[in-house]
Amino acid sequence: MGWDTYNAYGLDYNETVLKVNSQLLVDLGFRDLGYNVIVLDDNMQLRQRDADGNLQENRKNFPSGLKKISNDFHAAGLKFGVYSSAGRYTCGQVAGGLDHEFADAQWWAGLGADYLKYDNCYNEGRSGTPKISYDRYAVMSKALRDTGRNITFSLCNWGDDKPWEWGGDIANSGRISGDIYDSFSRPAPQCPCGPDEYYCQLPGGGCSVMNILGKAANIAWKSQKGYWNDLDMLEVGNGGMTYVEYKTHFSMWAGVKSPLIMGNKLNELSPQDYAILINPAVLALSQDSDGSAMVRRRRQSVDDKDEYGFGEVQVWQGGLSGGDQAVAFLNGGNNTRTITSDLIEIFGGIPTEDKAAKTWRVYDLWGDATMMSNTEAGRILNGTLLPAQASRYFNRTEMSFEEAIDRNMTSVMGTYVNTVGAFGSISAEVPRHGTALFRLRPVKSQTRKRDEL
Amino acid sequence: MGWDTYNAYGLDYNETVLKVNSQLLVDLGFRDLGYNVIVLDDNMQLRQRDADGNLQENRKNFPSGLKKISNDFHAAGLKFGVYSSAGRYTCGQVAGGLDHEFADAQWWAGLGADYLKYDNCYNEGRSGTPKISYDRYAVMSKALRDTGRNITFSLCNWGDDKPWEWGGDIANSGRISGDIYDSFSRPAPQCPCGPDEYYCQLPGGGCSVMNILGKAANIAWKSQKGYWNDLDMLEVGNGGMTYVEYKTHFSMWAGVKSPLIMGNKLNELSPQDYAILINPAVLALSQDSDGSAMVRRRRQSVDDKDEYGFGEVQVWQGGLSGGDQAVAFLNGGNNTRTITSDLIEIFGGIPTEDKAAKTWRVYDLWGDATMMSNTEAGRILNGTLLPAQASRYFNRTEMSFEEAIDRNMTSVMGTYVNTVGAFGSISAEVPRHGTALFRLRPVKSQTRKRDEL
Amino acid sequence: MGWDTYNAYGLDYNETVLKVNSQLLVDLGFRDLGYNVIVLDDNMQLRQRDADGNLQENRKNFPSGLKKISNDFHAAGLKFGVYSSAGRYTCGQVAGGLDHEFADAQWWAGLGADYLKYDNCYNEGRSGTPKISYDRYAVMSKALRDTGRNITFSLCNWGDDKPWEWGGDIANSGRISGDIYDSFSRPAPQCPCGPDEYYCQLPGGGCSVMNILGKAANIAWKSQKGYWNDLDMLEVGNGGMTYVEYKTHFSMWAGVKSPLIMGNKLNELSPQDYAILINPAVLALSQDSDGSAMVRRRRQSVDDKDEYGFGEVQVWQGGLSGGDQAVAFLNGGNNTRTITSDLIEIFGGIPTEDKAAKTWRVYDLWGDATMMSNTEAGRILNGTLLPAQASRYFNRTEMSFEEAIDRNMTSVMGTYVNTVGAFGSISAEVPRHGTALFRLRPVKSQTRKRDEL
Amino acid sequence: MGWDTYNAYGLDYNETVLKVNSQLLVDLGFRDLGYNVIVLDDNMQLRQRDADGNLQENRKNFPSGLKKISNDFHAAGLKFGVYSSAGRYTCGQVAGGLDHEFADAQWWAGLGADYLKYDNCYNEGRSGTPKISYDRYAVMSKALRDTGRNITFSLCNWGDDKPWEWGGDIANSGRISGDIYDSFSRPAPQCPCGPDEYYCQLPGGGCSVMNILGKAANIAWKSQKGYWNDLDMLEVGNGGMTYVEYKTHFSMWAGVKSPLIMGNKLNELSPQDYAILINPAVLALSQDSDGSAMVRRRRQSVDDKDEYGFGEVQVWQGGLSGGDQAVAFLNGGNNTRTITSDLIEIFGGIPTEDKAAKTWRVYDLWGDATMMSNTEAGRILNGTLLPAQASRYFNRTEMSFEEAIDRNMTSVMGTYVNTVGAFGSISAEVPRHGTALFRLRPVKSQTRKRDEL
Repeated sequence: MGWDTYNAYGLDYNETVLKVNSQLLVDLGFRDLGYNVIVLDDNMQLRQRDADGNLQENRKNFPSGLKKISNDFHAAGLKFGVYSSAGRYTCGQVAGGLDHEFADAQWWAGLGADYLKYDNCYNEGRSGTPKISYDRYAVMSKALRDTGRNITFSLCNWGDDKPWEWGGDIANSGRISGDIYDSFSRPAPQCPCGPDEYYCQLPGGGCSVMNILGKAANIAWKSQKGYWNDLDMLEVGNGGMTYVEYKTHFSMWAGVKSPLIMGNKLNELSPQDYAILINPAVLALSQDSDGSAMVRRRRQSVDDKDEYGFGEVQVWQGGLSGGDQAVAFLNGGNNTRTITSDLIEIFGGIPTEDKAAKTWRVYDLWGDATMMSNTEAGRILNGTLLPAQASRYFNRTEMSFEEAIDRNMTSVMGTYVNTVGAFGSISAEVPRHGTALFRLRPVKSQTRKRDEL
Repeated sequence: MGWDTYNAYGLDYNETVLKVNSQLLVDLGFRDLGYNVIVLDDNMQLRQRDADGNLQENRKNFPSGLKKISNDFHAAGLKFGVYSSAGRYTCGQVAGGLDHEFADAQWWAGLGADYLKYDNCYNEGRSGTPKISYDRYAVMSKALRDTGRNITFSLCNWGDDKPWEWGGDIANSGRISGDIYDSFSRPAPQCPCGPDEYYCQLPGGGCSVMNILGKAANIAWKSQKGYWNDLDMLEVGNGGMTYVEYKTHFSMWAGVKSPLIMGNKLNELSPQDYAILINPAVLALSQDSDGSAMVRRRRQSVDDKDEYGFGEVQVWQGGLSGGDQAVAFLNGGNNTRTITSDLIEIFGGIPTEDKAAKTWRVYDLWGDATMMSNTEAGRILNGTLLPAQASRYFNRTEMSFEEAIDRNMTSVMGTYVNTVGAFGSISAEVPRHGTALFRLRPVKSQTRKRDEL
Repeated sequence: MGWDTYNAYGLDYNETVLKVNSQLLVDLGFRDLGYNVIVLDDNMQLRQRDADGNLQENRKNFPSGLKKISNDFHAAGLKFGVYSSAGRYTCGQVAGGLDHEFADAQWWAGLGADYLKYDNCYNEGRSGTPKISYDRYAVMSKALRDTGRNITFSLCNWGDDKPWEWGGDIANSGRISGDIYDSFSRPAPQCPCGPDEYYCQLPGGGCSVMNILGKAANIAWKSQKGYWNDLDMLEVGNGGMTYVEYKTHFSMWAGVKSPLIMGNKLNELSPQDYAILINPAVLALSQDSDGSAMVRRRRQSVDDKDEYGFGEVQVWQGGLSGGDQAVAFLNGGNNTRTITSDLIEIFGGIPTEDKAAKTWRVYDLWGDATMMSNTEAGRILNGTLLPAQASRYFNRTEMSFEEAIDRNMTSVMGTYVNTVGAFGSISAEVPRHGTALFRLRPVKSQTRKRDEL
Repeated sequence: MGWDTYNAYGLDYNETVLKVNSQLLVDLGFRDLGYNVIVLDDNMQLRQRDADGNLQENRKNFPSGLKKISNDFHAAGLKFGVYSSAGRYTCGQVAGGLDHEFADAQWWAGLGADYLKYDNCYNEGRSGTPKISYDRYAVMSKALRDTGRNITFSLCNWGDDKPWEWGGDIANSGRISGDIYDSFSRPAPQCPCGPDEYYCQLPGGGCSVMNILGKAANIAWKSQKGYWNDLDMLEVGNGGMTYVEYKTHFSMWAGVKSPLIMGNKLNELSPQDYAILINPAVLALSQDSDGSAMVRRRRQSVDDKDEYGFGEVQVWQGGLSGGDQAVAFLNGGNNTRTITSDLIEIFGGIPTEDKAAKTWRVYDLWGDATMMSNTEAGRILNGTLLPAQASRYFNRTEMSFEEAIDRNMTSVMGTYVNTVGAFGSISAEVPRHGTALFRLRPVKSQTRKRDEL
């Protein structure tokens, strides 16, 4: 969890941008919710290396020097993230790490880096089989380990050569698609692979939220503790989607355990978007210790397409620690609709599945119990209220999500909706492009087990 | 033929599980039918190697030690099968064999291993062309031969990089798909390649019986004596399919010569499922010395789809030793139907095919003559009847299937149905998701050959 | 051009088979038409090499020894062709040439080999990119050249890894598909790639004539002098197709410049099939010095499908030496139909194409002028007439096709049909599964050229 | 920008051809517009190398020697372009550069070469992954740099192995498809990959303008300053397309920043085609310093298909320097139609896009203001008028396009059409197979910015 410069600032960010946003990560309570990495994305180094072959800081944008920035982050309880590409250049055409892995890793370690996002541009054609790509990225993995510093390694090779097959051997997360675009379902010529294509030969960019989510559906199960499928950064707050769409985006990224890296301008956040990003019940689902990504249980085409021709309803489910379950109803149609799904479908379509025969209490993760009010959110944003004083804010440094769940704390559990019996159904009215997101908790059986009879 | 821990126990099996099931392999007569390998699947070793780089036993689960277990198996006339992955770790994340092949093979040989199932997880990206995968698996093949011990080598790389093209050079069988799931036709997001995709880029898992059978259809003819296409373990007895579906599953796995490895809990077998697994006529087909896998002769979409949208009728045929033929009618529709196929279709759709002009006696392999009654099966399972005392049990250690066929022994030949003349048809009423399975025997011509005229 | 043991005899051929067929190649006049290579296909060597690593003759089948057979062939004016596989074994599981290329080439040269068909079985996974396959086959190419003997090199890797891209660097021809089957359009499970798939991942076998022709359509233009696309052997005479279908098969193989290798039993040829194979006008088209393969100009789906669901009309065209043109109308529908095509379509669909504005004389290559009568053919087959005495037999050793064309010899030119003017059309009534095959000869313009005005 | 022998002359060009066309490049004013490279395409060298392994000139075609020709070009202010293939032979089967890169680069440098077009024929199978192709082409890139001479490197590997991923590391442009054919939309069997296939396994040749443009759509955004997607040479003037179609061809090649290399006979140019090629407004778009390729914003199937079955409407947009925009409406239907698109669609379909909210002045790039009259063009072609004397001719050596735009020079800006307000629409009547091509210039806002309020 953290924040990255790229989506909102592209190559044009500087010391001031970092100062403003890092301060807000702390002041708005993001850090204490777990958003504690700041990634300096493309353009932190120069195109030319120095005489010794080492990277050189972009002093124009960072006149105080990167070490000072890193120290400031650490002093503020934040982590310092860096970026490069497993190529001759980065995508922004400054010096890339290919064939300089060990020097660059030392350089970053010297700066106090805690995180590396490692891209795929200008890779000198070193792709085409999993082995070729693995070999290229594995060098940096070793280089990072050799520094002796604990640096999270985030593969950004766009799903090329199936990182879900091998990323877990060398990294902590791996992108699965071309870059995200701040749109719910707009198709883009530069993102030609459809949401069904699990072996895309042109990942591209400009991919919509629904495009990326579709790609994630086939490989959601490949995610695991220690290696997460990365659906790319969050667009919440950037203005290209509606409030409802951003909630869907955030719900699904959390549900499939994608890293949650904000890509917005924190000083321009609206109260509504702020409330999305700090929803403790959704974050608890994302950070659940069980680590299981939700998988898609239904994909249903509907007739009410949106202006881009997209129209489908999806049902997702995933296990949580302690036997709880996450369930999402996604209305990708153009009209509000009631979505209903029974426990057999939710748990995989197998009538004999034990979980379908249980009784469950259903909690809504986007209800009043978990959502901060606009008024409070607005006051935090304008500095007249501290997060700790707001009624729905959750401070993870004081209490873990696990403990909050154990205590049945409403803002983390969600709003109780109803109880569904064995083989019963859950229904929800879901707006256009919206998502109903639930936590299900098993009700302990009151009756004797069959083998006790 | 044998039994494997994975489908029923996953990573959670131990010495007791092995003792119970190995004892039942003997007591229920499975061993004497040929089910004589027990495979200790994922989790028999630790994640860490010892100081010398050797594998370490999972002493927690196997306190008596693996050598003791192996000795006990051998003493009982059973074979000791082991498991690992051609990767850094196994799928269950204990130590894998990649780059440790020779040490590990020696370790297994020291334990008296007779069989190795070798998986594909955490393979460090060493895939993408047949050559890359071959090179990886061939090392273990050599390592096994170098031990001097006869160890059956079972490739488990999920059909990745087309093992049917090269597996025969180095191994005895090779998986063709992602892991099986105990369902007849349920689609699963983690098994995205459809039954038509013979070059799947994401084998996944959770694949249904019909999904895997479809994949087998394109490559059935690649199976050969000494290298078999492996459709994954049998789910018979695990409860996810109906009795009729399990008969289909067993019929087709036998017909395409997949290795028959049970994946159930032998102490929880129902009489019906037991009777399926010991049907001598079907086993004789599977173990026929001719070694030809059945090939699909018809694939017909039908309108009566099941709840998962699956609906097709299939006709399969394969040669048997001595000129006999195996024929299967699979009703993948949702209603009982009569399936009819003429000899031209059965033998490949060529009007001039000699076999279509012959006369054949038709034997039903699932009829009364071959199926043990529920009563007898139940008594064997509850220990009040020895298999040798039951009326349909066949002991291969006393008589080979070939000899039984030569003697026209009804329980192995099947139930005589009728005789079909030149260019005639065979019909059978087949229930939803069921299969009619026949042996055809040529009737010696009474008339003079044409060239005698 | 020649004859190969495989299609008619499989692995079961011997000295007698070779003697009978080689004698008939001479006696029936095939040799003097150019069918002068006899290929001893799979099973000429043993599975084991000798102590020095050399191949060993299959003495059981060839008791006189291969050298004697080769000498006999050469004495009869025939060439001696051999077979092996670029693998550990051949497809029939005798010793293959992989990693023994230089020794084996020497061995064949010692036997007087003139031709090598080199297969793709048991290749130890050395495939997956053009480079991997090229490297494997290039070794044998060099080994053959190193012998100093002129040995034609025929790649038989089934179109795997796109031999049309690289075969011309090292070989004389290259197969483009799985093995042919003696059927016009029957689909086969072991030939899953359809006729449109130019990048087939499972070439398989059992492919019908229409399946292979479809695959050839996309790469016909890759054929060139010195490297021919090989559509596999001729099935004419093997009984699985009708007379009309065999004429189509032969017409199209000749038109796309596939090597013409018969795969029949010459002692069982019918007069009709014999007359197909010796049609001098069609052979002149195949052997034309221009070397241009016909390309497909129309592919039109029709409603009258055959029993296998196949139904399409095709128009093909190719250039011949001296400005002549070959044109084929293929009726792949189930009923007789008139096929009409205008010169614009025939010459590529470009209205401004110069050739469409010319006037052409049209000659039918399957008319009376070129077809030997059944009576004469029958008498040749039963030995009561010498080919040289028959009225349509053409002896290429006495006169070249080029010279015959220059002399306007009717049996080689074809039967004159009519003259078609600028932008005019050609029509022909074509039976089910039949082909009308024409030679077009430009009429010299009588008018002054425009630039003379 | 330049001229290449291949499309009009194939392998049959010689010193005279070069003399005639190079003179016309100067005399007709092409050179001063930027068309200043002459590429001697396939057949400038012999098939055999000399005793030292060096290339040998084709003295038969170039009796004066290549050095003389090169010197003449340089003296005339033209650049000398050469051609070879990264293979054993070129496509025309003379000596290729593979494994001779350093010697050949020196040879070309010695001749004074300024440009290399480097093809993909006879590549010894060195393809199949980006890495294999990259490694092959990168050797020549280094060899060219090692000469110390500035030689533009033009990859001609037909889009094989995705040069858009790696070409920018080593070259200045890269072909994306099989060879172009002088037809708007004719399908060709040798160009089997459709316009949607961004990962084509058989690039082939004979590809129509619409086929290639479709392929470009998916990767247009991969084009960048210093590495351009090459859609192959211009067919304008070769007679296979109508005047309107040639304008479309030229518009789109310019818009996606393909290199503009003419492939015609300059001495046979019609006035109309000449006027297309020298249109300064379209050339200014092509050569804009911003370097952004247009991307496709709409692809709409229409019912009025042409004779080849093609029928679609497309809308494209791209940024230009100074905030201007290029917009193209392509009518690929069979009838004249009005095409309308609003600013939201034009700028990517995102309602919140800033550019959609601006006001724009619209200039037509094919209007009277930019098109030379037939009369004047005819007089230039027949030598009775100097280009400099004609009213629409633009001399880039006297003034840059940038300066002309700054000065609002009509022949470069285009014909003013109208002004479109925020979220407004642009409409144009576009003939069959035609294109309306516009430059949009933002109108400076008269109102205060919102943050000034």
